[in-house]
Amino acid sequence: MKREQLVIIGGVAAGMKAATRARRVNPNLKITVFEEKDYVSYAACGLPYYTSGVVKEREELVLRTPEDFIIPFDIQVHTNHRVTKIDPQNNQITVFDLKGRKEIVQYYDKLIIATGAKPIVPPLPGVNLSRIYTIKTVEDASSIKDYIGRKQTKKAIIIGAGLIGLEMAESLVSQGLEVTIVEMMNQVLPPLDEDMAYLIEKHLIEKGVNVSKENPVEAFEGNIKAGVKQVITKNARFDADLVILSIGIRPNTQLAQEAGVALGETRAIKVNERMLTNIPEIYAAGDCSETFSLITGKPTWVPLGSTANKQGRVAGENAAGGDAFFRGVSGTMIAKVFDYTVAKTGLSEREAMKHGYEIERAIIYPNSHAHYYTDAKGMFFKIIAEKKSNRVLGAQIIGEDGVDKRIDVIASAIAQKATFGDLQGLDMAYAPPYSPAVDPVIVAGYVLSNKSLGLLKGMPADELKRKLDSGEKFTLLDVRDDEEYKKGHLPGAKHIPFNELRGRIGELDPDQEVIIYCLQGLRSYNAIRTLQGKGFTKVMNLDGGINMWRWKLE
Amino acid sequence: MKREQLVIIGGVAAGMKAATRARRVNPNLKITVFEEKDYVSYAACGLPYYTSGVVKEREELVLRTPEDFIIPFDIQVHTNHRVTKIDPQNNQITVFDLKGRKEIVQYYDKLIIATGAKPIVPPLPGVNLSRIYTIKTVEDASSIKDYIGRKQTKKAIIIGAGLIGLEMAESLVSQGLEVTIVEMMNQVLPPLDEDMAYLIEKHLIEKGVNVSKENPVEAFEGNIKAGVKQVITKNARFDADLVILSIGIRPNTQLAQEAGVALGETRAIKVNERMLTNIPEIYAAGDCSETFSLITGKPTWVPLGSTANKQGRVAGENAAGGDAFFRGVSGTMIAKVFDYTVAKTGLSEREAMKHGYEIERAIIYPNSHAHYYTDAKGMFFKIIAEKKSNRVLGAQIIGEDGVDKRIDVIASAIAQKATFGDLQGLDMAYAPPYSPAVDPVIVAGYVLSNKSLGLLKGMPADELKRKLDSGEKFTLLDVRDDEEYKKGHLPGAKHIPFNELRGRIGELDPDQEVIIYCLQGLRSYNAIRTLQGKGFTKVMNLDGGINMWRWKLE
Repeated sequence: MKREQLVIIGGVAAGMKAATRARRVNPNLKITVFEEKDYVSYAACGLPYYTSGVVKEREELVLRTPEDFIIPFDIQVHTNHRVTKIDPQNNQITVFDLKGRKEIVQYYDKLIIATGAKPIVPPLPGVNLSRIYTIKTVEDASSIKDYIGRKQTKKAIIIGAGLIGLEMAESLVSQGLEVTIVEMMNQVLPPLDEDMAYLIEKHLIEKGVNVSKENPVEAFEGNIKAGVKQVITKNARFDADLVILSIGIRPNTQLAQEAGVALGETRAIKVNERMLTNIPEIYAAGDCSETFSLITGKPTWVPLGSTANKQGRVAGENAAGGDAFFRGVSGTMIAKVFDYTVAKTGLSEREAMKHGYEIERAIIYPNSHAHYYTDAKGMFFKIIAEKKSNRVLGAQIIGEDGVDKRIDVIASAIAQKATFGDLQGLDMAYAPPYSPAVDPVIVAGYVLSNKSLGLLKGMPADELKRKLDSGEKFTLLDVRDDEEYKKGHLPGAKHIPFNELRGRIGELDPDQEVIIYCLQGLRSYNAIRTLQGKGFTKVMNLDGGINMWRWKLE
Repeated sequence: MKREQLVIIGGVAAGMKAATRARRVNPNLKITVFEEKDYVSYAACGLPYYTSGVVKEREELVLRTPEDFIIPFDIQVHTNHRVTKIDPQNNQITVFDLKGRKEIVQYYDKLIIATGAKPIVPPLPGVNLSRIYTIKTVEDASSIKDYIGRKQTKKAIIIGAGLIGLEMAESLVSQGLEVTIVEMMNQVLPPLDEDMAYLIEKHLIEKGVNVSKENPVEAFEGNIKAGVKQVITKNARFDADLVILSIGIRPNTQLAQEAGVALGETRAIKVNERMLTNIPEIYAAGDCSETFSLITGKPTWVPLGSTANKQGRVAGENAAGGDAFFRGVSGTMIAKVFDYTVAKTGLSEREAMKHGYEIERAIIYPNSHAHYYTDAKGMFFKIIAEKKSNRVLGAQIIGEDGVDKRIDVIASAIAQKATFGDLQGLDMAYAPPYSPAVDPVIVAGYVLSNKSLGLLKGMPADELKRKLDSGEKFTLLDVRDDEEYKKGHLPGAKHIPFNELRGRIGELDPDQEVIIYCLQGLRSYNAIRTLQGKGFTKVMNLDGGINMWRWKLE
């Protein structure tokens, strides 16, 4: 029996996962992997932690070597081999052996393209100066690490405030560097809503990071010998001993495109649920391939190691004769940024609007576990649901503890198209070290349900800011305790502590609109119900309380 | 307009939640709560942590006082008031004021019974001696705490190895006591399967706890002045300066029963999804009330603070004129037992069998997060699914890190009737500090799917034990590394490291049954696929690997 030949281009997450899955599904397949770099199967997501020293040796990031595959799995792995051409007419690829300096032609029955993505390097003057680095390969990280170690390295400029940019900020600050993050947009972490991103920005500043927003980079200055010296931006000129370029990545699709493999609207390789491209023998998986959103059903491109592994497994299984399908993504992401974990699943409020959803929002500040048990921490927790269907569309959470759990519980619920009512009903694990008796996810469901029942009407902080700035007439009511009020309150707020409200209702005008706030929104909710019970009709809550107020206090 | 009167019997989790929810839903309701004890709204689940000193002051466990309800919420709260009779014919209850020493009759339009549960005290000789405690109220915990502090208190006997028993074991060991747990059953933590419970037992022993199983208590000896001195069990006689009775709790239903409120088959108060009893004006919520399993659809009684809060909210909303429903439970539970977290959701294997499900099982030992990031820990992870429907029925997880997250993600999936295929597809948050690139939940889905596809056939450890004991002829193959093998292996196991297997297949007889194991099941899975690819047909995996072997090694 002739053994079918599977060829895989790219030996990192998706590629090697495809190879081993194919082997397990089909013991007779010939499997060959070509990887351009020195390494296969390395943990790209661990690179920031290698630069910081949390990961001590580069070998720890290399999960497996070619030798781990060749004999045990009967998988041929060729590193330092660059595929230069795919020829679908003749089912063959051309490969250049970078060490042997020769060209090979390799036949395939099935081909999996797992060429990954590469960092975007903007075509700016001076961008090729030395000491300007991207973070994609073990080599990148090693170079940065070597350079950080030198005593003349003092000032680092990070271009781009995405997940990797912020992980690198932590890494560099922890090693004593003076770090400035330069971002083109008007917020850090563009996938987040501005109100949530602001909390991270504040934390970065607390940790000594300079954050310069709405400030596109225009050029790099320096000289060939010493490398980069200054970063020239629209608004400033920053001294730089080291520059990290983390403005994003783009899929490696050139090889595929030249072979007639179609791209999707996101400019990544278009695939169906079986990870098959428009060419019947060619699959694609990992960062080079497109996927679709579980929420909108539309094409999306969210390159992550976790997704690459899943896609690689599906492609490998199907290329080996199986029948697997990939289920799409909800766009879950997470990062450690100093003391905070920041995480998101599903759509942000801004993304939901863009897709035309009419949404309801809840912003809460629950504890990570029972307040009386050691080290309970508050978390900023924003969740949105579609008004029409009650379906949960997304959540963003920031805090010091328990953030990853709640985002994953919501990701699990979203995957099953859960409504906020479903969140309310979740039977989550409760003991004091792990959660409050009512878990944050359930509280989030409750608040959305209260809004939907009309028990509570919320106003986002920026709307209140506009209202205040416009000079409109309304009562702004602070129902926190005396001490909290004295420490700082919203401009012009009247103060009646919630506990006194029932006795002091006479001080308020029932015909005037009343906007109530407390620290996080619980006392103000009770205050709203109290006033409504007494005939007030125009009463609203500041969503998320003073916690979400990002302007001046009095 | 006449204000309707809502009366609530019991002021802990369910009762006070019902009261505040009713107030928020209906500002005109008259709301009165009667509580027999000194405290309302206290955190019963925190009591073990108060005895251990993690919670310093008893006041920290009292979430709210009657004063926090009376004026701010217009809720009348009467502590030290014992309800002695419910009279549904006349819509009234009789209440005895324990401090004022007088009887009151209180009318109600709607009544919520939230009388909770009480610890089971077995009717054994000597059970009323002093220094024998249960753990249900703040008073119980205070007494124990006072007693632990005395220098003559050295030996503690805990009767019952359930969640509270084990939490108390940790508390007492941490304060230098010599602790023995006496359990009637043949395992600790009876809700768990025996194989998982064994891991906890081993950990208890490592931490210096004596565990005596299959050993029912028969009597307590001592004298009235000094209190308990010895615990007499079927197999032994234990010296005791302190005894904790934690053999379980039972619902407080006497008051309800006497009034004609029907109990369910679990002997807790029977309610519908709206928390309504058989009497149209009477609701019940919390530990005194029955619920149903999300998985089997059958009545169940799982008294927990988290559930009590949810049920109280539903009862309060409905009693106030709303329309809420309770969604049932999957039986999620969690506890910290020394360094381990032990958690369960859904059915155990034993429970699934009892309910007639034909199941598939996966036992894995994944890392809590990327192995190269600080402090990654392995976790013992067992999951079962129904063969016919692929639906996930339950999971049990034990480990030092990340256990609560995975159990909650699965609880969230189970609530939506997810299959193992749904688990595979979950878009969970991935960054090195939070999870491996392929999260344990996804790996669990993969293993179940591999079994369902026929790529892998598993054998539980006890079946292999029986097979070995019976002297049956088969090959037992250890595919771990040399060092691991030398440290200890299963009796009679042949050793071929996985990496050498392809070259040494000739050493194995393809006609004989081969049972393969490694540490946790990954290398053995690859070994199985290798042998099957070479024509072996009777190849099986030891589920969970040598990790789950609880008998002697060679």
